[in-house]
Amino acid sequence: MIVSTQVVEIPEFRMDCGVTLTQVSIAYEMYGTMNADASNVILVEHAFTGDAHAAGISDEDGRPGWWDLMIGPGKAFDTDRFCVICSNVLSGCKGTTGPASINPETGRPYGMSFPVTTISDMVRLQRALLDVLGVKKLLCVAGGSMGGMQVLEWAVSYPEDVHSAIPIATTARHSAQQIAFNEVARQSIMVDPAWNQGDYYGSEAPKRGLAVARMVGHITYMSDESMREKFGRRLRGQGMVDANEEYIFEVESYLRYRGSQFVGRFDANSYIYITRALDTFDLFESQKLVRLDPSSTRFLVISFTSDWLYPSYQSQEVVNLLRAANHDIAYVELTSNYGHDAFLVDVAQQTDVIRGFLNSVSRNLGISNYALREGVH
Amino acid sequence: MIVSTQVVEIPEFRMDCGVTLTQVSIAYEMYGTMNADASNVILVEHAFTGDAHAAGISDEDGRPGWWDLMIGPGKAFDTDRFCVICSNVLSGCKGTTGPASINPETGRPYGMSFPVTTISDMVRLQRALLDVLGVKKLLCVAGGSMGGMQVLEWAVSYPEDVHSAIPIATTARHSAQQIAFNEVARQSIMVDPAWNQGDYYGSEAPKRGLAVARMVGHITYMSDESMREKFGRRLRGQGMVDANEEYIFEVESYLRYRGSQFVGRFDANSYIYITRALDTFDLFESQKLVRLDPSSTRFLVISFTSDWLYPSYQSQEVVNLLRAANHDIAYVELTSNYGHDAFLVDVAQQTDVIRGFLNSVSRNLGISNYALREGVH
Repeated sequence: MIVSTQVVEIPEFRMDCGVTLTQVSIAYEMYGTMNADASNVILVEHAFTGDAHAAGISDEDGRPGWWDLMIGPGKAFDTDRFCVICSNVLSGCKGTTGPASINPETGRPYGMSFPVTTISDMVRLQRALLDVLGVKKLLCVAGGSMGGMQVLEWAVSYPEDVHSAIPIATTARHSAQQIAFNEVARQSIMVDPAWNQGDYYGSEAPKRGLAVARMVGHITYMSDESMREKFGRRLRGQGMVDANEEYIFEVESYLRYRGSQFVGRFDANSYIYITRALDTFDLFESQKLVRLDPSSTRFLVISFTSDWLYPSYQSQEVVNLLRAANHDIAYVELTSNYGHDAFLVDVAQQTDVIRGFLNSVSRNLGISNYALREGVH
Repeated sequence: MIVSTQVVEIPEFRMDCGVTLTQVSIAYEMYGTMNADASNVILVEHAFTGDAHAAGISDEDGRPGWWDLMIGPGKAFDTDRFCVICSNVLSGCKGTTGPASINPETGRPYGMSFPVTTISDMVRLQRALLDVLGVKKLLCVAGGSMGGMQVLEWAVSYPEDVHSAIPIATTARHSAQQIAFNEVARQSIMVDPAWNQGDYYGSEAPKRGLAVARMVGHITYMSDESMREKFGRRLRGQGMVDANEEYIFEVESYLRYRGSQFVGRFDANSYIYITRALDTFDLFESQKLVRLDPSSTRFLVISFTSDWLYPSYQSQEVVNLLRAANHDIAYVELTSNYGHDAFLVDVAQQTDVIRGFLNSVSRNLGISNYALREGVH
């Protein structure tokens, strides 16, 4: 399945901070076929450094989508039955407007003059995209990590527009530890002299700081166990001639490599803006979750045993709150050694529970214009 | 108790890497009184960024020692009974020779030409110090974190010289995750242009990179719970005017402050050398632990429930190995919310088990030239 990213332009977009952006681009991809009444649409939300390319093979670089294991014919999000849409978030750098975009008022990149962005802004821009695409109500909105936060935000911002929601490996608010890791990443970028207060477009980017930020991220995405299994204490180099370059553990060279690769595909200012959006997100403080009408949306909440970045207790906080208010909510804690990465790579059990949930949602809605093909694949 | 750091010079010191250092300084402090046959000496080992000032009030800056809660009259390491010695590690920057010291051969600081240092080097230099001080056999060697690694190294390098050993919140080898966190810290320093391949003495130090490294460290020293209790999601600033400076969580300003304070008191090259020593330490690979004579040393191993940097399973690996070889080994997992910091701050239970252990060790040795004053304090 060769796919290409599309871009829609939204003429005006008012942000939570009060600023109105003009000529806002939003990049998206679509998989499967939308039915006549657009009742089979699933919106998939990407995580922090993800993009609109969630599935299939990119016509640009030949890479598979970040959730290609989960989206496609016969997969968890079955494109023979559902129309799956994924868009790049506001303040990102993969086709949607963000700090690296040209400010139409100045003709220069926004940089740090880009307005402070919230998860709610990201979701409202997606609502605008779906208006353009003619989608009123989503069969489901699903995603992991920051994608899960957007799922929760959809449920509270547009309860009438969301039949069902699948927040995975996520939280309704960051803990002090999660904020702390993000702050280390931000500081790492901002102390790189090349960052230059965010004004580096056209010159050298703060690649060294961004690479270190990404290295921290990778540690938190894996578990102690999965790092031991993958790297252990194996050496890449030999001997101990030099304090730094000769005695290299595989885990070090892996992190350095991942860090160095990342800087070619991600914008440092987007890293700052998106981590800010993550840290300031708080559905408990805003009381939005507790006020939600229990009749609006069905929930399936998923967490993973070895995920210490978004530990299960954070999912359970959401589950307990909504259950106490009589919401229709299922919760599954899946066993995995992959840590936070589990939602991306450990898909067998995830597929089972999501397929079952989507079948149930579809049946209850009496959606009949496409066949339920359970068990075919 | 006003104390002052002393310095001994060792004329020649051969390191594991084969290099022989000359005119090696080793800084130490001593608390309590050594008895005539030097049979009441306890060597306390400091953690990564610690120093020789373990107890009492420094005559230089008025600060209490880093383990002052544990060392003193009537405390866990009772200076009315025992003579406690603590020295700064080799390749450190608190009075013992390290990368910031002047190389007598060149008249300039070693920088990155300082020889690769191991935990075993650190311990062997301490052995040389004790020779100067006239101490043949230690009643006990004790310490947490990197201090605990030195404790284990003492037990295997000088089994005849160690009556008892108390490794706390430590491991016999770093996991991939522990190496990874150290590598992030090293990279953070080394990508700071001021680092200049370690040649920055006399000019600006790589303060920004070192501060970020320290911020990462602080996250790993605390637990998710203790960060929540200490900071939660409380804000320091107000509003959301600017993406970076106006909306500051308390945990961010704490980390920034701790990072900025740290750079005034620690050398970036020492940070690199010591993390290397931590990462390359491996008593399993060297088979040193498994070959240890069970009659040599009594062990008390302590870990803490919420310590995720040096989790209990790492202490249990050591305990299981030594128990299988019929060593005299006690293991206590203490309940604490303080994470890895527990060994420094959560001292009540630690004091009880250590005092009991030291009483037992002293009784068995028939040490009689000072009174056991159990229960007096």
